[in-house]
Amino acid sequence: MENIYRVNMTDMTVKQEDVPEEWALLGGRGLTSTIVAAEVLPTCHPLGPNNKLVFAPGILTGTPSVQSGRLSAGGKSPLTEGINESNSGGTSAQLLARLGIKALIIEGQPKGDTWFNLHVNKDGIAIREETELVGKNNFAVIEAVESRLGKSTGILTIGIAGELRMLSANISVKDPDSKIRSHGRGGLGAVMGSKKIKFITIDAEGAPGVKLADPDKFKVAAKTFAKALLDHPVSGQALPTYGTNVLVNIINEAGGLPTRNFTSGQYAAHDKISGETMRDTIVARGGKPKHGCHAGCIIQCSQVYPDRNGGYLSSGFEYETIWGLGADCCIDDLDIIAKADNIMDDIGVDSIETAVMFGVAMEAGIIPFGDGAGVLRLLTDEIGKGTPLGRILGNGAGSVGRAYGITRVPIVKNQSIPAYDPRAIKGIGVTYATSTMGADHTAGYAIATNILNCGGYLDPLKKEGQVELSRNLQIATTAIDSTGMCIFVAFPALDIPECLPALTDMIGARFGVAFAVDDFIALGKKILKLEHEFNIKAGFNKAHDRLPEFFTYESIAPHNAVWDFTDEEIDEFWNF
Amino acid sequence: MENIYRVNMTDMTVKQEDVPEEWALLGGRGLTSTIVAAEVLPTCHPLGPNNKLVFAPGILTGTPSVQSGRLSAGGKSPLTEGINESNSGGTSAQLLARLGIKALIIEGQPKGDTWFNLHVNKDGIAIREETELVGKNNFAVIEAVESRLGKSTGILTIGIAGELRMLSANISVKDPDSKIRSHGRGGLGAVMGSKKIKFITIDAEGAPGVKLADPDKFKVAAKTFAKALLDHPVSGQALPTYGTNVLVNIINEAGGLPTRNFTSGQYAAHDKISGETMRDTIVARGGKPKHGCHAGCIIQCSQVYPDRNGGYLSSGFEYETIWGLGADCCIDDLDIIAKADNIMDDIGVDSIETAVMFGVAMEAGIIPFGDGAGVLRLLTDEIGKGTPLGRILGNGAGSVGRAYGITRVPIVKNQSIPAYDPRAIKGIGVTYATSTMGADHTAGYAIATNILNCGGYLDPLKKEGQVELSRNLQIATTAIDSTGMCIFVAFPALDIPECLPALTDMIGARFGVAFAVDDFIALGKKILKLEHEFNIKAGFNKAHDRLPEFFTYESIAPHNAVWDFTDEEIDEFWNF
Repeated sequence: MENIYRVNMTDMTVKQEDVPEEWALLGGRGLTSTIVAAEVLPTCHPLGPNNKLVFAPGILTGTPSVQSGRLSAGGKSPLTEGINESNSGGTSAQLLARLGIKALIIEGQPKGDTWFNLHVNKDGIAIREETELVGKNNFAVIEAVESRLGKSTGILTIGIAGELRMLSANISVKDPDSKIRSHGRGGLGAVMGSKKIKFITIDAEGAPGVKLADPDKFKVAAKTFAKALLDHPVSGQALPTYGTNVLVNIINEAGGLPTRNFTSGQYAAHDKISGETMRDTIVARGGKPKHGCHAGCIIQCSQVYPDRNGGYLSSGFEYETIWGLGADCCIDDLDIIAKADNIMDDIGVDSIETAVMFGVAMEAGIIPFGDGAGVLRLLTDEIGKGTPLGRILGNGAGSVGRAYGITRVPIVKNQSIPAYDPRAIKGIGVTYATSTMGADHTAGYAIATNILNCGGYLDPLKKEGQVELSRNLQIATTAIDSTGMCIFVAFPALDIPECLPALTDMIGARFGVAFAVDDFIALGKKILKLEHEFNIKAGFNKAHDRLPEFFTYESIAPHNAVWDFTDEEIDEFWNF
Repeated sequence: MENIYRVNMTDMTVKQEDVPEEWALLGGRGLTSTIVAAEVLPTCHPLGPNNKLVFAPGILTGTPSVQSGRLSAGGKSPLTEGINESNSGGTSAQLLARLGIKALIIEGQPKGDTWFNLHVNKDGIAIREETELVGKNNFAVIEAVESRLGKSTGILTIGIAGELRMLSANISVKDPDSKIRSHGRGGLGAVMGSKKIKFITIDAEGAPGVKLADPDKFKVAAKTFAKALLDHPVSGQALPTYGTNVLVNIINEAGGLPTRNFTSGQYAAHDKISGETMRDTIVARGGKPKHGCHAGCIIQCSQVYPDRNGGYLSSGFEYETIWGLGADCCIDDLDIIAKADNIMDDIGVDSIETAVMFGVAMEAGIIPFGDGAGVLRLLTDEIGKGTPLGRILGNGAGSVGRAYGITRVPIVKNQSIPAYDPRAIKGIGVTYATSTMGADHTAGYAIATNILNCGGYLDPLKKEGQVELSRNLQIATTAIDSTGMCIFVAFPALDIPECLPALTDMIGARFGVAFAVDDFIALGKKILKLEHEFNIKAGFNKAHDRLPEFFTYESIAPHNAVWDFTDEEIDEFWNF
């Protein structure tokens, strides 16, 4: 028996509600976006009492399937001011799913300065005053909460950035090693902070677990699905070996590695920050080159990156972070980038927004390009302390651009453009322009087909077919984000015929319904359109589906490519 | 023979162009908005090379008519990111008109750090490098330029705020006493700064002057028009006696004087900052209680406010500024407010945006409410020096709200709501919501009919008729802003039957065409719709025609009024 929990922070009440019939087959992004669209006034202030913060495990989370442990968080984004869904690994999704919690909706806002935590267990949810850990950062919260409640406790927490309602604030999720995964993009940590919730703890002892309507059918499909993941060269080989950072050399070779705040597509020092170098370093120092962010992960793209003495330096060390501080900020030192990654985890800011922001801050002259020590100092002493400069930086790249009058600011819908230059890899540019989330590579990862030859091949420098590619990927991704599956299942799903039917078979077997690939695509379309409608009501129109102007008149080496889509070509995206 | 001048700051060229036939009868806002809509890409970066800064004297500027000396500046606003027109008194409009310059269009953007000035005279426009006055504030610029070029020189200049491209930066215009009037709203000073133009000087020696097609008809109409201004109690008595600050007691009495960052509609210390107190103070100190901002002004609502020793403290000391720092920031000392006004003139920031911003900064806890010394310090040491905090503050109320996570931020389209609470005076709320300029009282001054009984009376607390009132006023104001007339001609135009026909007769006589009141209204409608279309292309939709959410759920004393228009009611505005 699954439930919805509704926590009201205005009147400090908790309600357990039945799952409405129309939400029965939803989960993850499908459910968070449905709830946000149904219950949140699109023009509300994202940090005010009328925004809601919704957590939902995926449809398949808590089942025996591999890769299914992701948690979606949703709300109106204070960064983009549109709808947001951001999903994360870590242990919380599976704990919530096993407790039968289909969605946790946090609404309202307390008056006054008192902070709270929420404790979730089989008996319900308690709202408790919190004093000890207010003002502390994430690693301290995890350590203290584990000593209060035990190692098996799931934790969702915000650092100082979320407390200060910074727009790059993420929600941090404890991973199996008591380290951090993040609901990174869209600033939902600020929403959690605006509701005065420092952290949420989850105790799944005595949880009923997830019931499967047809366990045998599920088992067969799950086996096929897992095999497809292991058989595909990206999810079965490249990612487990080098992590996502395998992309540095690949994207640099393609001329699409944005460098020095998006002024070039290649970084001379790419070798120093590449996945190959990173793996060698980890192995030489006795770290873990492979690591899963949740139980049941067989891709193991994560890693634990040690310092020179073999001590912990960072984990979940992703390509986009390394690209951002590396190529885009010209810091050619993985140790400094790892240290910065660790601080970003601790204070709780999105490492993509923050890395891109530093590129803009360097262009603004706040610190010089390449100044790794400066980055560490700004993170710790400015953002981490909430100084005026820290607030400018902590509100992301758009904030720095506005504060310093900078025109070269790589953002869409006020969210930073990640690690793939849209001029040189046009399919991803269509995704940046049109995604309901603002610039987001995961929303429709056209790199797959533009660069990695997954799902066929489209020349990244040509416009032909890119809108359709991005549309198909965004629809499928919206559905994948609803399952609780990690996005990397898309690679085998694109190339191995039995993979996607196995995934939809698992959904059918979970609920005891017929659920085919067509239903999956229909789900993706429905949710994507719902999000788009929310955004229009929130104040977006076609003019927001545009890349920053400088991409149209500044060409990028080595291909001397510009962003050359017409408005009409981009607007075709929504014709489905 | 009138001309258009086009100054290109990318290739440092100046072109003199004929006036296109379709622009022949346009001037002021009608012309700046037409040029911006025709030539500026709505999605361009407002501080990038593709925005334009357009100056245009009004249709009647430079003629013998009273009140006709206003200059319009236009462009894409970096504050609202929509179209902007901001008009100002001072001496420049009449000098440009006498030189036959119908519009000055500044386009492009130099690369590099070199600053320039423009010098306009009967022979054309020269672009000159400027080094001496870069980094100087406005009073120093005026003093230095007058010593270079003489007292009769017209000057348009930006202070340090414009140089730093702050979004509240205005363009300052020298007045007849070598003091300052401002193109205040919309941040066009940042656009001028982005084009690296520190100041523009205008020498009208040998200027041909404005030719009238029918001087006799013009003279008759001008006389009727001037008489109407003097006969009306607002323009003929209240404004000349107390200045615009006559409104403090009136709006306080009406319960619509936003106090303590819009938490109450009445200010206990209103007497200390009222127009009556101000006049007594000026008279007692030997200042000037009446003063015109341009030659030919017979309303004389301005004044020179002296310090305790009779020295200059400020001038052009307006109700909205005094309200903002007074009631909204709870500073009950006119001398401190005058000092702040003087500093704002000097560094070149909009005194409405800045005053409202301080109310939000006080709510954020940056300084306490009532801290006048703190305001002076933040103006001088933070905004005036471009520190990180100064950049947050100098970018206006919305910027402070975003930097500090404040939800009670009185802005529409990112521009601050001025001195009349929309909950207690609903007509002006419709104007704030729908104006193409963002929140702007002058765009459709419903206070006239809601409070001052001009043009009839509508109960300010009731919704009935307010949308229609605001629509009619915005249409008429758009036309008035095209004539070069000061907005206060609207009072007699609303109440004295022969006033508006006299105004349109002057336009007809100026050009030798038939120009009736219907043509005037048609002009207003056409330009307003053009601006609205630009804004939609720039990224606005109906969701932007909304007041901040807190007005809908926080009631305001003494009437306990909330903002209660439905979306549908507001959206009726554009049905014309």
